[in-house]
Amino acid sequence: MNIKLSLFIRVIFILFCLGCAHKTEKPKKASATSTKQQKIVDLSHSFSDETIYWVTAKEFELDTVYKGETEKGYYYSANNFTTAEHGGTHIDAPIHFSKTGQTVDQIPLEKLIGKAIKIDVSAKALLDPDYQISIEDFKEWEKREQIKIPEGSIVLLATGFSKYYPDKLKYLGTNERGEEALKDLHFPGLAPEAAEWLIKNRTINAIGIDTPSIDYGQSQFFKIHVVLLSQNIPAFENVTNLDVLPATGFEIIALPMKIKGGSGGPLRIIALVTE
Amino acid sequence: MNIKLSLFIRVIFILFCLGCAHKTEKPKKASATSTKQQKIVDLSHSFSDETIYWVTAKEFELDTVYKGETEKGYYYSANNFTTAEHGGTHIDAPIHFSKTGQTVDQIPLEKLIGKAIKIDVSAKALLDPDYQISIEDFKEWEKREQIKIPEGSIVLLATGFSKYYPDKLKYLGTNERGEEALKDLHFPGLAPEAAEWLIKNRTINAIGIDTPSIDYGQSQFFKIHVVLLSQNIPAFENVTNLDVLPATGFEIIALPMKIKGGSGGPLRIIALVTE
Repeated sequence: MNIKLSLFIRVIFILFCLGCAHKTEKPKKASATSTKQQKIVDLSHSFSDETIYWVTAKEFELDTVYKGETEKGYYYSANNFTTAEHGGTHIDAPIHFSKTGQTVDQIPLEKLIGKAIKIDVSAKALLDPDYQISIEDFKEWEKREQIKIPEGSIVLLATGFSKYYPDKLKYLGTNERGEEALKDLHFPGLAPEAAEWLIKNRTINAIGIDTPSIDYGQSQFFKIHVVLLSQNIPAFENVTNLDVLPATGFEIIALPMKIKGGSGGPLRIIALVTE
Repeated sequence: MNIKLSLFIRVIFILFCLGCAHKTEKPKKASATSTKQQKIVDLSHSFSDETIYWVTAKEFELDTVYKGETEKGYYYSANNFTTAEHGGTHIDAPIHFSKTGQTVDQIPLEKLIGKAIKIDVSAKALLDPDYQISIEDFKEWEKREQIKIPEGSIVLLATGFSKYYPDKLKYLGTNERGEEALKDLHFPGLAPEAAEWLIKNRTINAIGIDTPSIDYGQSQFFKIHVVLLSQNIPAFENVTNLDVLPATGFEIIALPMKIKGGSGGPLRIIALVTE
């Protein structure tokens, strides 16, 4: 073997080794990139005396237990609070409208964490506070995105109404409270036939909406709640910031307060969006 | 160049190309593996009348608003509840012991989500309910794991005490309640010098423990709370299921109820463990 050829083989060998070295580094880099490029979006309203509740439900109340310097020399702050399970950004556990449904502590976490889609109907819903999201809205989304609603998705319905929050008149349709105010509730929700279509034709893990309820304000029989919760599909209500989410390609982490036997409860819900 | 040599170079070239091909496939595989093999572990106790609170704090109280068939023909279940912010599995926001600290709604989500480690001191702590986790415990962990506590970690301290929950006598040291019971509190926590060492020598995002408090039961001045919360390091208390976690290589997602101005609140905390 002459020197020139020996050198050539050495170069090839070095290139091969570089290839190997590069190969072993790649997974680390890929992993670091995917973590860094995920943006966290908080889809939760905070709880305060402005938090919006159903007109007949107990509102959020924070009582200061202590706030200030103690005689032992350290600062201390602590509160108690009272609330209805269903108010502000919260989850409806299946048992809320289904006798045999899961309580909030029984909902499998796998249903509350995972890939999600957003169906934006705000162009229609903002023009009509009684808007009911239709089968056609689902079909149009599928046509536009060129996919079926993926199996096991968390489906978020964006009506645009969260921009009115916490203005009760605009968001709920009324500033009044009590049984008398029920007739004045006006906000968008899901149409009964659309909920039926969804459970018959697609398989979803959970549903969410940026209004007070998955049933629209004028609903009398809460058919959407009955239909979806009877299938153990939990619902997230009063979510916010849906406008910054894409239609697909993001994940939801929705962790409710773990109330034993609860029909629902305060929910902290976030989206992880790959940028 | 003779044929034998030409063949040799071709083999080297093919090997090189295989190296390249393998290299480009690797990230995909790694990514698929990490998604599919992640197990969700719930580190949260549920809230009920068994939930353990500080002996002077208001306990959890669930009031049934409605449960049963309605006159309109559908089933309905809903509750109200009252609780102290600090009880059961909960978060201490920095303002709990630091006048200028963040309130629970102000804690950046980036601090509550990410890579975590577990420091298991249960062999010592289960023998001594007044055990205080020491600098030596941190150093031993680092020696055993052959790494420093990684920057930006969520650090979970496993004392083994969660196995006593909700037995108040074993978990808290007393079944009694009120100011009088404070002297009888016995459970492990962090030593003041260990907390100081941690903030001076390492950079952590949050801390968690499977006892009622990061300060041990006999603490009078809550120095650990003051030291860590003053650095805007939130604390997770009364966490559970730490025994199933490895020492490293898992992620924590800790989502507290978003109470505006809150000093803490109910926390749903989970671990994602790569199997």
